[in-house]
Amino acid sequence: MSNGTGHYEKRLSDLAGLYADQTAFAALLAEGDRVVYDVTEFRPSEKAGDVIFGVTRMSPGRIGDEFFLTRGHIHAKSDRPEIYYGQKGTGLMQLESPDGETRIVEIGPQTICYVPPYWIHRSVNIGDEDLVMVFCYPADSGQDYGIIERSGGMRHRVVAVDDGWTLTDNTSYVPRPPEVAAALVGNAV
Amino acid sequence: MSNGTGHYEKRLSDLAGLYADQTAFAALLAEGDRVVYDVTEFRPSEKAGDVIFGVTRMSPGRIGDEFFLTRGHIHAKSDRPEIYYGQKGTGLMQLESPDGETRIVEIGPQTICYVPPYWIHRSVNIGDEDLVMVFCYPADSGQDYGIIERSGGMRHRVVAVDDGWTLTDNTSYVPRPPEVAAALVGNAV
Repeated sequence: MSNGTGHYEKRLSDLAGLYADQTAFAALLAEGDRVVYDVTEFRPSEKAGDVIFGVTRMSPGRIGDEFFLTRGHIHAKSDRPEIYYGQKGTGLMQLESPDGETRIVEIGPQTICYVPPYWIHRSVNIGDEDLVMVFCYPADSGQDYGIIERSGGMRHRVVAVDDGWTLTDNTSYVPRPPEVAAALVGNAV
Repeated sequence: MSNGTGHYEKRLSDLAGLYADQTAFAALLAEGDRVVYDVTEFRPSEKAGDVIFGVTRMSPGRIGDEFFLTRGHIHAKSDRPEIYYGQKGTGLMQLESPDGETRIVEIGPQTICYVPPYWIHRSVNIGDEDLVMVFCYPADSGQDYGIIERSGGMRHRVVAVDDGWTLTDNTSYVPRPPEVAAALVGNAV
């Protein structure tokens, strides 16, 4: 994407703590702190009513039986949605509601994924090539990356099985107390 | 696009009055009131902070030396922007500020066009195949289609020349009075 106003990269070390197989993570990190995904964005302003868009590219890769994935976030203004639009590769959008419901949207080229207000979301590259998506969200959304860390990860893990994937329970997951979940849905501005 | 919540078509008769060559327009319309463009959209809500997205497809065609184009609009909340993302074909986004400045953005596959707040915009199919674009805009934007009609069209016409296009003055254009242009920029909510 040309004419972006910002660019950032996330490296393997930025994903520390996300994976069940810590031995596999340490072994891969010992080979080098490679770039896992990068984002080029156009951020015209952060005003309410404006929109931010950009392109995200994630390498293929595995750590144990889990795939490369993004850290994931909920919007700081949690009622703000996000649009993802698949360009290349094969991925999943892993969605989790504040009270712990999981939904999975498979994304390939020309798939549009609408992340509704209040849903935590993370993308997962389940293919063997780069996963490239365009995204767009309200400019005043903000991001809360800590929400996943505070509950010990997302409720489910996406794991490889044969040529596909399945969900397993994340045994480290601590459900959000009902009042915390309710507050996330109640903070609309 | 699947899972859309709405769909509409615009036919040739909906474009009456937009073209300089009214004889050519009448002759083409006599052959049948064909669909010029159609839009499939996903409109989750119309709340501030939500977003609407969709896909628009416009046929190739000419009326005199002008191309098939959309009626064009400014957002009813005029500070709301819009993103267009080219998928197929070759087009132009014709942008006009309230005080009459014209800007043109050429759009092909993978071109992202950001329509800034306060700009009137119309798309033009300058190619010989369908022009397909994805779009996204704030859910509370609204549309004012009358703005172009009230000034006798957009200030410039996009006309075919050799294998390309150029701009000519629209002789029917009546500039907006300064107070009208100022009010358009001042109605941000």
